[in-house]
Amino acid sequence: MLGDSVFKNRFSSVKKLMEKEELNAFIVSGGENLYYLTNFARGLALLIFQDAEPILFVPKLEYEDAVENSRIVRVMSVERSADIPEYLLSTLKEHGILHGKIGVEENYLSIPLYMELTSKGDTYNFVFASKIIRQLRSVKDKNEIELIRRALQIAEHGMKAAIDAVDDGLREIDIAAEAEYAMRKAGAEWFSFETIVASGKRSAFPHGFSSQKIVRNGELVVIDIGAKYCGYCSDITRTVVVGSSRKDYDEMFNCIVSAIESALETIQEGVKASDVDAAARRVISERGYGEYFTHGLGHGVGLNVHEGPRVSSQSSDILQAGNVITIEPGIYIPEIGGVRIEEMVVVTKTKYELLNKLNRILG
Amino acid sequence: MLGDSVFKNRFSSVKKLMEKEELNAFIVSGGENLYYLTNFARGLALLIFQDAEPILFVPKLEYEDAVENSRIVRVMSVERSADIPEYLLSTLKEHGILHGKIGVEENYLSIPLYMELTSKGDTYNFVFASKIIRQLRSVKDKNEIELIRRALQIAEHGMKAAIDAVDDGLREIDIAAEAEYAMRKAGAEWFSFETIVASGKRSAFPHGFSSQKIVRNGELVVIDIGAKYCGYCSDITRTVVVGSSRKDYDEMFNCIVSAIESALETIQEGVKASDVDAAARRVISERGYGEYFTHGLGHGVGLNVHEGPRVSSQSSDILQAGNVITIEPGIYIPEIGGVRIEEMVVVTKTKYELLNKLNRILG
Repeated sequence: MLGDSVFKNRFSSVKKLMEKEELNAFIVSGGENLYYLTNFARGLALLIFQDAEPILFVPKLEYEDAVENSRIVRVMSVERSADIPEYLLSTLKEHGILHGKIGVEENYLSIPLYMELTSKGDTYNFVFASKIIRQLRSVKDKNEIELIRRALQIAEHGMKAAIDAVDDGLREIDIAAEAEYAMRKAGAEWFSFETIVASGKRSAFPHGFSSQKIVRNGELVVIDIGAKYCGYCSDITRTVVVGSSRKDYDEMFNCIVSAIESALETIQEGVKASDVDAAARRVISERGYGEYFTHGLGHGVGLNVHEGPRVSSQSSDILQAGNVITIEPGIYIPEIGGVRIEEMVVVTKTKYELLNKLNRILG
Repeated sequence: MLGDSVFKNRFSSVKKLMEKEELNAFIVSGGENLYYLTNFARGLALLIFQDAEPILFVPKLEYEDAVENSRIVRVMSVERSADIPEYLLSTLKEHGILHGKIGVEENYLSIPLYMELTSKGDTYNFVFASKIIRQLRSVKDKNEIELIRRALQIAEHGMKAAIDAVDDGLREIDIAAEAEYAMRKAGAEWFSFETIVASGKRSAFPHGFSSQKIVRNGELVVIDIGAKYCGYCSDITRTVVVGSSRKDYDEMFNCIVSAIESALETIQEGVKASDVDAAARRVISERGYGEYFTHGLGHGVGLNVHEGPRVSSQSSDILQAGNVITIEPGIYIPEIGGVRIEEMVVVTKTKYELLNKLNRILG
């Protein structure tokens, strides 16, 4: 549980960025963005002013919960969610804001609500401002890093249980069951995403899920899991072979481990995220697997399992101390299978801190 | 696994509704809507024409998976997701569609993508058409009802395991662990939503989650869980008392059971969904709990755990045979606790079919 000072700091950072963007007010609507600022995720919108207390709008049935559990003093119950544009516009007027720039979160607001806001509020200039909370959330403070570290410890418990369970004849969902159960018992408050256990040919699909497929000797099994703790996510992948490994599998494993090491060597504040991706990609290409590494190297992790910064060849992000990112190269050979290993690191001024404790190659 | 004829029928229904709305093409972008039409959820967009094969656009890393697992012949790999508007507009032109009405899903498309589509595609009239797939999905065929029935059987396994586990001294997340484990072992491919185990004062929050809170003798425990099977969701709630019950709890239980019975009596094709809500609400109000029933009575369930029709006082939906809906009245008394019981039913021409087998009052 984060203290009140954390929330106070977050608001003061938001207001600085609002000032930079010359916003008269800012309407936050992303679920995790609401949680980040209020400790309550199921609001409809948070209206932030420069010189007045923010107002959290919540559905009627969430009102009691929001009053008790949010860190916001002014909570307003909304009878019908579709009426939120009218509530926002009338509240702006009540606060003497009759025109000017109003930030909205273009990645979270629905098109109909946005259209209603802009047509009924035609004295305002609504500007896209999703980047404000994205930027703040991408840099974690010590408290947040401790929660993520704990979330990853929980996920590593789950990973050990899953790998211990892997055996010829089990279904993928049986292995997922063991991972999830172990994570819950270790304190998981939920899972970061749909548990992936993908075996055999299915392991060559980077975003598989857990199916009824039976795991067989000689197959690769990609296990990608995550736990949530106090709202914060973890994300870990390991790949194992059922029974004995093979030479071609071993080469894939060795390549992925080398790619991780090369990527890690590049990490420190000020480095382009795309250069970290390039370091891993170079190793994989040199060993002839370039065409089989079909996704970006990693992503930021926090309240969402995918958030800023983006670690890919197309990223324009520059690493900052306090970023928590994954490094997860993969090789996916159709009809053969896939190997992916995923680590989590904190970017520091001069290097990085590895959050994982579990060996990269297991089983 | 649904047969090819199911997907063929779905497309022919979509095309009829497109014709009614005079759409020259229809861009589907909702994840579950994509799954509904293609058997593949992780696409970026599906472009549907009246007289040509539909085209599924997918991120590069999903291409192999989509070719193997979607029921779509024309799959196109998209290098950068942000470029999807350009892909869509150039594909429309290649098909000789240079102007006219193009349906978009206003509830799923992001504002930036919509703005780019409408500005670069200024010869087209983009119209909001989310209702098309919502309407189709709200009426289930026999195959879908069997998958939902199976998903609910799995959830009832989970509910039994959870209720067997409830005991003074356990954390809410320990009880969630048992529910989820039992669902996985019974065949769950994932969960419909975040498992809710809310005890004591927390049970008075309708949308609680599972926390580290320790369950104590004398407390109410609301357990709300769901399993996914072949993409289809289930949703079930039961409430139990830890140890011996009390007179005030018993009155709440009796009221909720009567409210369910009253609601069920009203269900058949042609009835207003708001009248079903009213039937339950009347019972609860008559017994003096009206102010504590703070949400709608229920909702449709299918590929999403919340979909059409809406069963609430504000709903304008009329029940149709083949709707699968929940009936889930609740009483939430701040500082005391909550009782909610949730059943799933299929609407028929003359009545309804109850999908649940588990007793309403347990423990």
